[in-house]
Amino acid sequence: MAEKDWIRRYFAPLAKAPGAAGLTDDTAELSKGYGPLIATVDAMVEGVHFFSDDPVETIARKLVRVNVSDILASGARPREALLTLGWPQDGRNQDQIVSFCCSLGAELDRWGILLAGGDTVMTPGGLFLSLTLTGECLGAGPVRRGGGQAGDDVWVTGEIGAARRGYLWKTEGRGEARWLHALQAPELPPLEAADLIASHARAAMDVSDGLLGDLATLAEASGLAAEIELDQVPFAGGAASLVEMLDLASWGDDYQLLFAADPQHAGFIQDSGFKVTRIGRLAEGAGLAATHCGKPVNLPETLAFEHGRVGQPPVRS
Amino acid sequence: MAEKDWIRRYFAPLAKAPGAAGLTDDTAELSKGYGPLIATVDAMVEGVHFFSDDPVETIARKLVRVNVSDILASGARPREALLTLGWPQDGRNQDQIVSFCCSLGAELDRWGILLAGGDTVMTPGGLFLSLTLTGECLGAGPVRRGGGQAGDDVWVTGEIGAARRGYLWKTEGRGEARWLHALQAPELPPLEAADLIASHARAAMDVSDGLLGDLATLAEASGLAAEIELDQVPFAGGAASLVEMLDLASWGDDYQLLFAADPQHAGFIQDSGFKVTRIGRLAEGAGLAATHCGKPVNLPETLAFEHGRVGQPPVRS
Repeated sequence: MAEKDWIRRYFAPLAKAPGAAGLTDDTAELSKGYGPLIATVDAMVEGVHFFSDDPVETIARKLVRVNVSDILASGARPREALLTLGWPQDGRNQDQIVSFCCSLGAELDRWGILLAGGDTVMTPGGLFLSLTLTGECLGAGPVRRGGGQAGDDVWVTGEIGAARRGYLWKTEGRGEARWLHALQAPELPPLEAADLIASHARAAMDVSDGLLGDLATLAEASGLAAEIELDQVPFAGGAASLVEMLDLASWGDDYQLLFAADPQHAGFIQDSGFKVTRIGRLAEGAGLAATHCGKPVNLPETLAFEHGRVGQPPVRS
Repeated sequence: MAEKDWIRRYFAPLAKAPGAAGLTDDTAELSKGYGPLIATVDAMVEGVHFFSDDPVETIARKLVRVNVSDILASGARPREALLTLGWPQDGRNQDQIVSFCCSLGAELDRWGILLAGGDTVMTPGGLFLSLTLTGECLGAGPVRRGGGQAGDDVWVTGEIGAARRGYLWKTEGRGEARWLHALQAPELPPLEAADLIASHARAAMDVSDGLLGDLATLAEASGLAAEIELDQVPFAGGAASLVEMLDLASWGDDYQLLFAADPQHAGFIQDSGFKVTRIGRLAEGAGLAATHCGKPVNLPETLAFEHGRVGQPPVRS
């Protein structure tokens, strides 16, 4: 089937952006909205960011969500998307593209995202996806990593470690199957988290490379030190030991939001209507310090940094 | 080397967009400009859109240009870019990323494009690139394929067939080596072509799938027929026979601009200061008709349509 037919049959029905012109042209007109406009792009590669046998439905959901988390963390609402789809020349039948598009469409709708354009190419390699997502800031500009101030509380949305648990089940049969969904497509906080970030966060980012490493990054960008109370962290399924806590807090792929806020905003944040937990604070100085039940914890140096490769392949194969 | 280090070393110096924040955050703030904002995305895959032994410098140039041609064809100036780079886990050494970024930076500068963000991932497959490019319309909106009117002149910028000649030299040793550059990185019309399109074109698109097929597409989108005078087409290096003309006009990868304009604008268009040639006209009806020295030419049906696969792999390997 020619690209034109793929577009007409599978993608044009998803292209609900007014400026997409039914994907009949090579460019789409973007809506400018009222607030400042931001954009992000995240790619996913078969065998690196997802397993070859993952359902295409969850691959589509994950592709959208890993981008949405970046937009929410900036205090913005997602708006329009452009999709690059590198489809394997061999090995995936046409049913899969139907399932992929169906799931993609539902996920875009869930976040109010309008597909505006894209490019579909055949590739001799595995499935390769990239999504560019725009967002409209709810405040005067995007909330950045570097805006934290000494004394700020550090908060995280949702739970940490569910994807790690899914990975352990998938690869080693450890734990419970119920976590697999979080590996295949992370649970994000609701759209309203964008308002929370825009109204109350001085610094924010999504948790993609591990809570500890990402907190170290946020603190460094703010020119400060960070302290984290591991026993306050909302670990998915709980954590039985310090070793398990450190494992769950350094693995990544959570796509929850990590942010710093003035302590005077704590009441508003706690009343947000979704799960948000205070897990530490920013302080003068540099580096990351952790405590467990009030006692200092020695952090292995590698925990506080990203995984040491290009990209952060959550699927270690 | 970790992604963070790649970004800091290679990509941050290219990220000149004011809202890119030095690529230290996951989102970039886009400039809204004055005119309507448009976006396009085009991907390139090793072994499909370029040869494995093509220089990374020309791969970078081609990536930018295949997107720029879409923006120019909409009557818009390119503005900001987001890059997805899927770098092979094996087989390309680090010198190549330096060369790629150096060439990419120079090419972005040439078009006044500011790199705003991106994502770099390792892939078990070949080199995979995708660029999202925004543009600011010079008119009230993007010029579309479907705006042509009966009686409009059909024009094309630059020359047609240089990439085809480069391909014949590369794969069969036919012709001259001097055309190879056009296959590796197409020559585009200058930035001023955006003004020409915005001011004078009623319908426009870039020539990526072959002049004949693309003209048929433009005519169909406009609800009209098109006539093309093959002896008027500016073929790269000239064309000795009708067979050669049809070959050069149906191969694609030209990335020149094809547009329809009111005949009253012909004088302005001819005075544009760069090469623009009138090659035919739009008329009531449907379909594509070609003439050669005033006589009708039978067009093989396949010439008037795209190459029958997903993507239009210009590299047939």
